[in-house]
Amino acid sequence: MQFPSNDRVSITMDDHGVAQVRLTRGDKMNALDPEMFARIIEAGHFLQKTRGLRAVVLSGEGKSFCAGLDTASFAAEPPSDEPSLTERTYGNSNKFQQVAMQWRKLPVPVIAAIHGVCFGGGMQIASGADIRIAAPDARMAIMELKWGLVPDMGGYALWRGLVRDDVLRELVYTNREISGEEAVGLGLATCLDDEPQARATALAHQIAGRNPHAIRAAKRLSNAMHDRSTNDLLMEESIEQHAIMRTPNQIEAVMAGMAKREPKFSDV
Amino acid sequence: MQFPSNDRVSITMDDHGVAQVRLTRGDKMNALDPEMFARIIEAGHFLQKTRGLRAVVLSGEGKSFCAGLDTASFAAEPPSDEPSLTERTYGNSNKFQQVAMQWRKLPVPVIAAIHGVCFGGGMQIASGADIRIAAPDARMAIMELKWGLVPDMGGYALWRGLVRDDVLRELVYTNREISGEEAVGLGLATCLDDEPQARATALAHQIAGRNPHAIRAAKRLSNAMHDRSTNDLLMEESIEQHAIMRTPNQIEAVMAGMAKREPKFSDV
Amino acid sequence: MQFPSNDRVSITMDDHGVAQVRLTRGDKMNALDPEMFARIIEAGHFLQKTRGLRAVVLSGEGKSFCAGLDTASFAAEPPSDEPSLTERTYGNSNKFQQVAMQWRKLPVPVIAAIHGVCFGGGMQIASGADIRIAAPDARMAIMELKWGLVPDMGGYALWRGLVRDDVLRELVYTNREISGEEAVGLGLATCLDDEPQARATALAHQIAGRNPHAIRAAKRLSNAMHDRSTNDLLMEESIEQHAIMRTPNQIEAVMAGMAKREPKFSDV
Repeated sequence: MQFPSNDRVSITMDDHGVAQVRLTRGDKMNALDPEMFARIIEAGHFLQKTRGLRAVVLSGEGKSFCAGLDTASFAAEPPSDEPSLTERTYGNSNKFQQVAMQWRKLPVPVIAAIHGVCFGGGMQIASGADIRIAAPDARMAIMELKWGLVPDMGGYALWRGLVRDDVLRELVYTNREISGEEAVGLGLATCLDDEPQARATALAHQIAGRNPHAIRAAKRLSNAMHDRSTNDLLMEESIEQHAIMRTPNQIEAVMAGMAKREPKFSDV
Repeated sequence: MQFPSNDRVSITMDDHGVAQVRLTRGDKMNALDPEMFARIIEAGHFLQKTRGLRAVVLSGEGKSFCAGLDTASFAAEPPSDEPSLTERTYGNSNKFQQVAMQWRKLPVPVIAAIHGVCFGGGMQIASGADIRIAAPDARMAIMELKWGLVPDMGGYALWRGLVRDDVLRELVYTNREISGEEAVGLGLATCLDDEPQARATALAHQIAGRNPHAIRAAKRLSNAMHDRSTNDLLMEESIEQHAIMRTPNQIEAVMAGMAKREPKFSDV
Repeated sequence: MQFPSNDRVSITMDDHGVAQVRLTRGDKMNALDPEMFARIIEAGHFLQKTRGLRAVVLSGEGKSFCAGLDTASFAAEPPSDEPSLTERTYGNSNKFQQVAMQWRKLPVPVIAAIHGVCFGGGMQIASGADIRIAAPDARMAIMELKWGLVPDMGGYALWRGLVRDDVLRELVYTNREISGEEAVGLGLATCLDDEPQARATALAHQIAGRNPHAIRAAKRLSNAMHDRSTNDLLMEESIEQHAIMRTPNQIEAVMAGMAKREPKFSDV
C-alpha cells in the first residue's frame, strides 16, 4: 500500500518499519493552508493502517519545518458547511487539533525533526510528536496571540508535563521567538542536532529494533500519565506488563540481550 | 474609581491599563500582619472590578518584596470570631490562601517583581502571579517548616507544573534559602533582571498591547491546565477559540499584524 | 525492636530517629532476586511500625546502589501460586510496585543515596524516595525495554512531576544510560555529592530536627499533589495546617526559632 502522491505530504517506509513523513510544501515554508490540514490528516489515517510500522520521523522539506497558519487563509471565509470548532469530528478533537494530536494517537513513537522556522500551528504539530530534535538555530514560537488568537491545536494538552507553567504563560502571552537551543531548556525541544532529520532517523531505527509490543505499551503509558491518578497508573502499568511478559517477542528480547545478538521480533 | 489610600497597599493604573500594585509596608519588609492580609484582599477585590485593566505588576516598596508572616503575629491570639482555616470564605480558599490565589483569579496576567527577601507567605503570594521576575540576588525560601508549619497559602496548588516534585520536597523540608538566580533553575522564578519592576512593567505593557480577549482566554486555559484531562483541555481550547474568532478585536489583531502597525483594541 | 538479620537488607536507627536502610547483597550489585523483593517489603513493613522514626536513608552496600532485576530470575518459572501482576496485593500495588511505592507510603521522608549502577528496578526503587542524592559518576538507566518489558514498578506514577514527558519517552524507549550529573538535569536525581550516603544522612538529620507533625503533613501534601485538583489541594493544605497549629510541637518550633536554640519535639 502506498500513500497517494500529492503536493503537501509524502510518506516512505523502509524495511525496518521506519516511516519518513515529509511536509512537501517547501516553497511556502510548509505553511498550513486548508489543503495541508486535509493531507496531514490523510497521512495520519494511512499510518494508522500501515502494517509493520515501528516508528515515524516527521520533518519538513525546504528551509523550514512549518511556518504555521498560512496567512492567506485568514482572509478566506470558511466554507458554509465547515463544522464548528467545538464539534469533535476526530474523537476528542476537531480538524485542527487532530493535525497535532494524531501523532500521539499513532501506536508507535513519532520523532519530529525541526529546522528553520517552527511557528504557531507548526509548533503544536511538533509538540504532538513523542520526541523533538531541533537544529540549534531553529526558530520556534507559540505565535497565535500575534493574530489575536489562543493556541488551539492541542497545545494546552500537549504542553502539560513538558513546559513549565510560568514559562508557557510568558511564551503564549508574548509569542517570543526562541532558538532550538533555548527550546531544549524550556521544554519545547528534547535535544539538539545540526542534522535533526538524520538524528531522528537514527533514533527511530533504535526504537524499531526493540520489542514492538513493549514500545507500544510504553507509549500508551506515557500518553496516559498526565490524565491518571497514582492508583490508576499503577494498575495500567500492571495490565500492560501482564500482557507482554512471556510472550514470544519478550522472550526473544531476553534471549538476544543475553547472547548480545540482534533480536528478531515478529510483527504486531 | 480610586483604591482607598492606606498604609499597606497602593494601586496606580496608567493609560494602557497596566496597574502597579505595591506593598507599602517597606519599613517592615512588607511582612504580613493581619492588616496586610485585609488590605491585599481589598486590592484584589478592587482590581476585579477595574474596567480597562489589562495587566498587573505586583511589587514591594523598600528593600524587599515580602518577608512573610510578621513574627509578632505568632504571639497574638486569633480573634474569637475568626473562621476556621478549613472554612472556604473566598470561593475555594480561606483568607490566607486568597492572598496568594487572588492573582490567579484576576482575569488578566499578573507579573510579580521580586527583590530583597521573598520568604514564606511572600513566596506563596509571588507564586500566585502568572510570571515572576527576580533580581539575581533576591533571597527566596519556602519558610514555613522553620515555624513548625506547612505552606498553606495555596503553595501546593500553585507549585504544580512549576517546581519539580523532589526539589519541592527538599525546599519545604529544609526551608533552604535560594537566590533569584537559583530560583529560575528550580522553577520559583521565571527570569532574572537587575531591575525586576522595570522589566515586569515592560512585559505588562507588551501584554496590554495584545487582544485582551485572547489574553484572558489564554490565562483561563493556563489556569485550567493542571486540573483537566486531555479530552477536557481539547474542548476548552476549542470553546475559547470559537468565542474569539472573527470578533472585532481578533480581526484588528490580524489587520494590524499584516500592516505592521500598532493594533487598537476595544475594551472588554 | 530490631529488624531480623538477613542477607539482603539491614536496618539501623540512631538516637535522632534516622534509619539507615542498606541493601546488603553487594556481591551481586544488590540485584533484585525473589529473596530481595521479599526482604525489602519486610523492611518497609518494619519501618511503618517503628516508633520515633523521623527520616530514612536508603543506600546500597558495595560498588552499587542496585543493578535492577537479577537476570538469573528471568529463566525461572514463577511459582504456581504467584498472584497475577494485576492483583493489588499491597493496597494500590502488586509486590514489585510495592518495593518502590513503599518509600512514598512511609509517613516520613526517605532520601536515596545513589552510587555505582542504578538500573531498571533499582531506578524505580530510588524514584520512590522523596529525594535522590547521586554520585556524579553514578550510572543510571530506565532499563526495562532492553528486556522487552515496560517499567512496571511504579515508575509511571513516580516520574510524574519529576521527569519531562519527552525526556521520559526517550529514556524509556532507548534505555540510554545517564550519569548522576546528567540525571540531576533530567529529573532522575535531586542533587550531586561525591559521598551520597554522608550527604543523605546529613539531610536526614536536618529533617529529623524539625516538627515531626509538620514534616509528615508536608510529605502527605507532596504525595497528593499530582492526584488532586486545585480546589482539593487548597482544602487539604488547610486541613493539615489546622491540625498542626497551636499544638505543643508547633509552639516549640516558634519558641526555639525565636530564641535561636535547638527545638525539642515530642514524639508522634
